[in-house]
Amino acid sequence: MSIKHNIVLFLSFLGFISCLEVRSQEHPSLILTQSGVEKIRKELGNVPLFDATLKKVKAEVDAEIALGIETPIPKDFSGGYTHEKHKRNFLIMQKAGVLFQILKDETYAVYIRNMLFQYEAMYKDLPVHPQTRSYARGKLFWQCLNDSNWLVYTSQAYDCIYDWLSKKERKKLEKNLFKPFADFISVENPQFFNRVHNHSTWGNAAVGMIGLVMQDDELIERALYGLQDDGLPVGAKDNDGGLIREEGQQTGFLANIDEPFSPDGYYTEGPYYQRYAMYPFLVFAEALQNVRPDLKIFEHKKGVLLKSVNALLNLTDADGKFFPLNDGQKGMSYYSRELVTAVDIAYYYGGLNPQLLSIAEKQNGVLLDDSGLAVALAVRDGKSKPFEKKSINLTDGSDGKQGGVGVLRADNEELTLVFKYAAQGLSHGHYDKLSFSMYNQGNEVIQDYGLARFVNIEQKGGGNYLKENKTWAKQSIAHNTVIQNESSHYNGKYEIGSKHHSSLNFIDISKEDFQIISAKEENAYAGTLLLRTLVMLKNSKAQKPLVLDVMKVVSNQKNQYDFPFYFKGQVIETNFDYTTYNTMQTLGEKYGYQHLWLEAKGKPVSEVSQFSFLNNEVFYTISTATNANDELLFTRIGANDPEFNLRRDAGYMIRRNAQNTVFASVIEPHGGYSHVSEFSVDAKTHIQNLKVIYDDEDYTAINIVFTGGDEKVLIIANKNTGKLKEHNLIINDKVFNWKGPYHYSIIK
Amino acid sequence: MSIKHNIVLFLSFLGFISCLEVRSQEHPSLILTQSGVEKIRKELGNVPLFDATLKKVKAEVDAEIALGIETPIPKDFSGGYTHEKHKRNFLIMQKAGVLFQILKDETYAVYIRNMLFQYEAMYKDLPVHPQTRSYARGKLFWQCLNDSNWLVYTSQAYDCIYDWLSKKERKKLEKNLFKPFADFISVENPQFFNRVHNHSTWGNAAVGMIGLVMQDDELIERALYGLQDDGLPVGAKDNDGGLIREEGQQTGFLANIDEPFSPDGYYTEGPYYQRYAMYPFLVFAEALQNVRPDLKIFEHKKGVLLKSVNALLNLTDADGKFFPLNDGQKGMSYYSRELVTAVDIAYYYGGLNPQLLSIAEKQNGVLLDDSGLAVALAVRDGKSKPFEKKSINLTDGSDGKQGGVGVLRADNEELTLVFKYAAQGLSHGHYDKLSFSMYNQGNEVIQDYGLARFVNIEQKGGGNYLKENKTWAKQSIAHNTVIQNESSHYNGKYEIGSKHHSSLNFIDISKEDFQIISAKEENAYAGTLLLRTLVMLKNSKAQKPLVLDVMKVVSNQKNQYDFPFYFKGQVIETNFDYTTYNTMQTLGEKYGYQHLWLEAKGKPVSEVSQFSFLNNEVFYTISTATNANDELLFTRIGANDPEFNLRRDAGYMIRRNAQNTVFASVIEPHGGYSHVSEFSVDAKTHIQNLKVIYDDEDYTAINIVFTGGDEKVLIIANKNTGKLKEHNLIINDKVFNWKGPYHYSIIK
Repeated sequence: MSIKHNIVLFLSFLGFISCLEVRSQEHPSLILTQSGVEKIRKELGNVPLFDATLKKVKAEVDAEIALGIETPIPKDFSGGYTHEKHKRNFLIMQKAGVLFQILKDETYAVYIRNMLFQYEAMYKDLPVHPQTRSYARGKLFWQCLNDSNWLVYTSQAYDCIYDWLSKKERKKLEKNLFKPFADFISVENPQFFNRVHNHSTWGNAAVGMIGLVMQDDELIERALYGLQDDGLPVGAKDNDGGLIREEGQQTGFLANIDEPFSPDGYYTEGPYYQRYAMYPFLVFAEALQNVRPDLKIFEHKKGVLLKSVNALLNLTDADGKFFPLNDGQKGMSYYSRELVTAVDIAYYYGGLNPQLLSIAEKQNGVLLDDSGLAVALAVRDGKSKPFEKKSINLTDGSDGKQGGVGVLRADNEELTLVFKYAAQGLSHGHYDKLSFSMYNQGNEVIQDYGLARFVNIEQKGGGNYLKENKTWAKQSIAHNTVIQNESSHYNGKYEIGSKHHSSLNFIDISKEDFQIISAKEENAYAGTLLLRTLVMLKNSKAQKPLVLDVMKVVSNQKNQYDFPFYFKGQVIETNFDYTTYNTMQTLGEKYGYQHLWLEAKGKPVSEVSQFSFLNNEVFYTISTATNANDELLFTRIGANDPEFNLRRDAGYMIRRNAQNTVFASVIEPHGGYSHVSEFSVDAKTHIQNLKVIYDDEDYTAINIVFTGGDEKVLIIANKNTGKLKEHNLIINDKVFNWKGPYHYSIIK
Repeated sequence: MSIKHNIVLFLSFLGFISCLEVRSQEHPSLILTQSGVEKIRKELGNVPLFDATLKKVKAEVDAEIALGIETPIPKDFSGGYTHEKHKRNFLIMQKAGVLFQILKDETYAVYIRNMLFQYEAMYKDLPVHPQTRSYARGKLFWQCLNDSNWLVYTSQAYDCIYDWLSKKERKKLEKNLFKPFADFISVENPQFFNRVHNHSTWGNAAVGMIGLVMQDDELIERALYGLQDDGLPVGAKDNDGGLIREEGQQTGFLANIDEPFSPDGYYTEGPYYQRYAMYPFLVFAEALQNVRPDLKIFEHKKGVLLKSVNALLNLTDADGKFFPLNDGQKGMSYYSRELVTAVDIAYYYGGLNPQLLSIAEKQNGVLLDDSGLAVALAVRDGKSKPFEKKSINLTDGSDGKQGGVGVLRADNEELTLVFKYAAQGLSHGHYDKLSFSMYNQGNEVIQDYGLARFVNIEQKGGGNYLKENKTWAKQSIAHNTVIQNESSHYNGKYEIGSKHHSSLNFIDISKEDFQIISAKEENAYAGTLLLRTLVMLKNSKAQKPLVLDVMKVVSNQKNQYDFPFYFKGQVIETNFDYTTYNTMQTLGEKYGYQHLWLEAKGKPVSEVSQFSFLNNEVFYTISTATNANDELLFTRIGANDPEFNLRRDAGYMIRRNAQNTVFASVIEPHGGYSHVSEFSVDAKTHIQNLKVIYDDEDYTAINIVFTGGDEKVLIIANKNTGKLKEHNLIINDKVFNWKGPYHYSIIK
């Protein structure tokens, strides 16, 4: 407490200094500029996308103004009345500010001023929020995070009416509301403000943006570089179990760019949180670009903020929905307001990439600022080009050396494979090393479960993370990867997981008909190496692309390995027998196993075990090379779920007892079924056999026999993966010579 | 056998006679006419919808011709190779015939001729199909039904090349192929041909259409009026358990119109089979209209065939998918080829209703005949109007006096309620008396399970009905209705069910803001009366419409009543406690109960038990007036399902032990949730309380308290439901006077 106090005193002193040397600055200056506003006003009525957005926003704000102003005493969790009301207030104030600038109608300025003074009157004596769950309770909201949201938006509204307010009004607001507000979410909550985390990004942006409006350099410095002496102990944790402080941690906005973003623009928490953080990242960057162009924020770390928009747009399915890696709520997409911001700013400040315009067209709305105008003008002028999503490999880690995420795509997103071999992903990370998911257009075929939470639905645990997020969603068994001895990777411990990361073995996505990615994980289970290679290939022009999945496991002891596929769809057939149960038991007791019902169990009857299902009118077959002693399980999520927080989704799983082994599978879309024509086409697998024909420290080789007799071999170099490295290997008396990390050929 | 033989001899003799008095008749004459073809050829290139269809059909047929002709020896069930090949053959032949007529390109005629002669060569010595499951095995297919499909389509192809063939060729085809084919599916299979059933409709049309082409009056008579002496025993059954012959049964095409269609055009088997039967009904009718206009087939039974198209289009959700009443496969819709036929023919022969044109536009294709041309011309000329779906009540039974199906709709199909109080529906009927389902646009909210079958997917039981269709899908517990003592309506016996039907108590759908339908069932359980009243009402302009459901049960003994709601979506909250289980047991042993897992069980804690769920971004709450001893169960479909034939869908169920009782519920959509904005709006129920305040033989009254305090009362007349009948009733010292079968008013 005494340290905090000292910081406050010290910073107040600094603030005093900065007041003395106040620059004269135009307003608005954050997302709107005076010249920008003039340009917008001149074009009004001639820019369909901008005009339509303006009309929509005006209708929304007018309706809200008609309801009157209400600033209730804070009480609820997200989803609850007071939470949603304060959230609505800041969203509407920001829009009203923009409307005031563009339409020059004082109604909007009056509305903002009156609301701000209601907040000013309330804030002085406001205690911390009564809900105690957060590690950093806010005042208006249950967590500082949402208070920061409020300030990021409200500072924009204040910026828009700054000149319109009297000096006295400004002084009163700044003294009683904005300054204490900024201090509360920073110096009084360093455990929130002074981290590398999406929470802190919001906090940094909030403090920085109000600092920019108030021309308070101390706040700006604090935002950019963090608190210098926060008194936080190394190893402190938040209420989600995330680490607050590591040794030697840099903090502040720039550190929040430097660290969680890889040089490719991948954000280590995953796309769902990247989307969430995108708004403060970009809107504060835009404001800095306008007020402090000397900082060259968009060039920071080789332009990573703009690259991150491209990365994020590439982490979506064909419908624009983000892959739910780590804690991600399904359904979130590039239609969200944060992505409208991201796309418009990336277009305007990032070289006017015409492919971004097609996303803006789909979003059917723009920012009501200089960047939005630029987008709307370009769309009007027919400059838009389709956004082309190709296969992509995104490194993780601030230096790009902590694994990554690979996305393989074929046939115009008819098949998309997402392969995660990244770092832990901070507190929102899952124990899902080398896991994958698969899509057909916007449709999940092999799913990643996502999170266990109903964001903002108050009835479901206050809209917060549910306990099943930890007991199920984060656990390894909830993912399509190997689980050893029914425990989770790193024993499900964040401290261990965050010390390690998987790493790329090799990748070649240069040929659409044969794309390959290979990565390894050496620490998920002590003494065990996992090496997974995924191939997306087209066996013939006439057929759909298929996936070849080779998971090599090497251990210093015998283990039980579980290898699940969380397929979506209707079971069509298997080439093995199984028995279902008249009473259902759970599959295990912990590490997520307690949430799985065992629906059926079978045994292989041939070298390859095959299971077909129908998903959204397409047939899929998973063919796996199995041993006679393997077990084939059908599971169902939902056991030990006393409040129906989990979806009752299906799983298919190979269970094997072994020391070193290879799980080799083909995941194959084929044919289709129409519920309207009732035609069933190409409903059977094209895989006749699948065998691991070679496996040692250096090489793993798979033989695939297609129906009709075609036979192919894939050889993977487990080491020595240089592109120019020459290999030769004899398998069953046949000599293979090749260059580079893999070999694929017809052998019959 | 000897009877059949005699019939064949006798009919051959008749055939001989009719050959002597052959009329000269133009060809084509079934779906195309010479003058029609001329008109089509004149308009080619100027009718976008027709031209586009022609182009698509030409491409399809050309591709098939390029593959060459193959007529494999029949072997497989539906979904299997030989089945699908022969099916494809007849579909393509029909299209090739049309192309020959329109394009005058002999390639198509040659293709048809060559294929027909391959069939001719094969048919002579073809034994019955090797698969033995059907009660009426075909030759090309496993059942006569599919052989009849073949002839319905092939006769059109033959019609198109009739004049182009030599007399000798025609004679050979008719003698060796068409005549024996027609005899095989009729006189040699009277148990198939001589019924009232969709199977027979296909058989009748097949025989009739080839008869029209061949100018064989005997075949035409046989088609229209059936076989006079078929030797079928009363009470015979087919392999689906359907009754083949009732006492005094009329047969033939006209009987198949007269009996299963109600005067409103509802087809007693339900919309899925009506769709299937629509093609032979309408295409044969069109052919009769062209060749035998004297029959005035479209005026038969007051124009019921044309009315039936309107009925069928009204039995769809907002996406055009048919309600899966009885045996119906979900996903089938008015986009099917049968409905293209139905819509075009109904337009052309049924008074040029411009609303049908908007369906044709959605179908994005037309018949390549006179009717299709008329539709395409009208669409081109901008005559299309939206098809307006309103609330509708369709009677069942040939006389319209065997109950019916009511569809209540509000807010432009945002809420649709389907209430089934019909007759058994022949062999495809379910034991689902007074059951209902509910939709929001094209989205199921409270579902009807539909059938347990994967039509034409060979791997799933040959694409045929699965045993779970009988053990689950047909049983009462699979439906949203009352189940007494864990048995099914009529004990699940077709013989009993087909003797009875539910009946309308009253209906008033004249006001969109308050629609009501009430029906009763007296025979589902001996000694028990069921009377269900469903209301769709709008409580305020601002809110979504809601459903009030009042199921009254009167019995001569104490029973256990189960009252399920098969909701789709995620459990959000309940106002009662429940416990889930760590081991799951089935709910019962028979009548479908063996297929339900018991997931959780609870007890009411207040007068009204409330359960909320989220479905497709809309919240729903089911509020039910409960007693302290009621049990509230959550169930999951899928137990005792050894081949994963059933969907793992959820149920919520009230279980009550009582003699006479009322299940009164409000099913209420409210608010919504967006996965993109993450706003949760109006997530809580508006129902504060719900009570049955009066219930006797004459009246049942429900009191509803809305949050905020509004209180309303609904009084239902259980008898004396005349529109002008005056009622007065005292409830809790309050006097109610009203006229007509129901009363609804504000009481506070």
